[in-house]
Amino acid sequence: MGATRLIATVVLSLLVFLSGSSATQKKKTQGLPRQPCNRMVFYFHDILYNGQNAENATSAIVGAPAWGNRTILAGQNHFGNMVVFDDPITWDNDLHSNHVGRAQGFYLYDRKDYFTAWLGFSAFFNSTQHRGTITFAGADPLNKTRDISVIGGTGDFFMARGIATLMTDAVEGEVYFRLRVDTKLFVLVTIDHPAFSLL
Amino acid sequence: MGATRLIATVVLSLLVFLSGSSATQKKKTQGLPRQPCNRMVFYFHDILYNGQNAENATSAIVGAPAWGNRTILAGQNHFGNMVVFDDPITWDNDLHSNHVGRAQGFYLYDRKDYFTAWLGFSAFFNSTQHRGTITFAGADPLNKTRDISVIGGTGDFFMARGIATLMTDAVEGEVYFRLRVDTKLFVLVTIDHPAFSLL
Amino acid sequence: MGATRLIATVVLSLLVFLSGSSATQKKKTQGLPRQPCNRMVFYFHDILYNGQNAENATSAIVGAPAWGNRTILAGQNHFGNMVVFDDPITWDNDLHSNHVGRAQGFYLYDRKDYFTAWLGFSAFFNSTQHRGTITFAGADPLNKTRDISVIGGTGDFFMARGIATLMTDAVEGEVYFRLRVDTKLFVLVTIDHPAFSLL
Repeated sequence: MGATRLIATVVLSLLVFLSGSSATQKKKTQGLPRQPCNRMVFYFHDILYNGQNAENATSAIVGAPAWGNRTILAGQNHFGNMVVFDDPITWDNDLHSNHVGRAQGFYLYDRKDYFTAWLGFSAFFNSTQHRGTITFAGADPLNKTRDISVIGGTGDFFMARGIATLMTDAVEGEVYFRLRVDTKLFVLVTIDHPAFSLL
Repeated sequence: MGATRLIATVVLSLLVFLSGSSATQKKKTQGLPRQPCNRMVFYFHDILYNGQNAENATSAIVGAPAWGNRTILAGQNHFGNMVVFDDPITWDNDLHSNHVGRAQGFYLYDRKDYFTAWLGFSAFFNSTQHRGTITFAGADPLNKTRDISVIGGTGDFFMARGIATLMTDAVEGEVYFRLRVDTKLFVLVTIDHPAFSLL
Repeated sequence: MGATRLIATVVLSLLVFLSGSSATQKKKTQGLPRQPCNRMVFYFHDILYNGQNAENATSAIVGAPAWGNRTILAGQNHFGNMVVFDDPITWDNDLHSNHVGRAQGFYLYDRKDYFTAWLGFSAFFNSTQHRGTITFAGADPLNKTRDISVIGGTGDFFMARGIATLMTDAVEGEVYFRLRVDTKLFVLVTIDHPAFSLL
């Protein structure tokens, strides 16, 4: 989403609202809006430090409960492990594809009886295609698919909010996992938004 | 808040806006909106691991300053302790009531001269009544009552934001505490929101 | 930003929208809104505990990778260090000026090959001038200037969102650094916002 494309989307969307027929308008009000202004699918690749892969590791255990350590994920479904990461982002599911950004932040394992996590991270883009960050946070029940929230956006993603549907795309031992992130972005309306002045 | 009920609230609210008399409208603009679309009160119960309660504990110290450890909260008002939790949620203040969800995430103690905390967590619901998450973050000065922000919402709480008023409802030693969370949710307006197409 | 001033800004902004000429309106739609409702510049001062400055330190390392400890920032650009802080806020860049609030939360170093960080913190104000919190989160690439997101607001800053431009204003060894925070706040529009009832 380049800034220009985003603005184009916004302006186009406004035109659609203003010219919409009554029939369409009625239909639209029957549910909450679920049509994002923008959708992005990307993958990120996490290689956890295990004491032997210093060269390749992109993440490391930095917090552990009393029964854990910082080179092996703790017992009890890793409850209490906190991991800091700086993972490459790719558009497809191949670690060796072009790295188009970095996913940076942390995750916690937070349940003793089965795997669940809590995530706080940003997708950081700095290319001709995208410049800016999308920040995510929330509980990750580690189901087949699950939603977390988009809590912030800067640069091209200024004032974007929404949700991201996560899917664990691959797991190799306790060292490598790959996450598919299907991000649906909406642009917030603020008090001095041009949409108001148009009306 | 089931999805249906939320939608009903939204539609109803729109009708109210559109039919409001001038008098009402003038009054409304004299302050920021403080009427939430939805309000939820719940309790969560935190039992901190102290080396002897592995069976019952719902949280554990995973980070500590140089002068602390991971079975006893550190000196200097626990400054620097980071706790990961997976706490049962109940509708009333009884730990033994029906567990209607889980509060999952972390808290930090972040002041040396008296108790203050910083929270990042989600209330996770997965029942016929509610399905989805509400994510909270912010400074907790540990006053009698204090507000933190709702920074995300998924499922039934899609695009909800707002604040939560916290109250420490009970404390037993340094092992058990119970928090009352009075959550006031508002639904965000985005560029392509049906409210625009209605106008 | 006192509550009164904020309300004044909001009401004024609404008047401007409603009275804007067509020409102005056209111009406004050519870009996303970048005019914040409110702007605040403040500084915060971080003094990291290094084993010898217990008296003055305002922050402490509480998480570290396997190759680190909690009194010295780790090798590999401090990758994996997590720091909890409670830093004084001043209006100018002098640590000894009046402390008008506290910046409380945590930061992580999250890259091995050069410095980058991830921040989660609140600016906590409790004076006659401002009462409430602004919560920030996001990736900090530690460039000369960089933006993070405003993800929450309480009290005077109720439902405020936006971005903050950070600048490292001073660094002394690995013990002291000072951050300039240029915060641009916008007030979110929610379903039952008075702006709707005005139209």
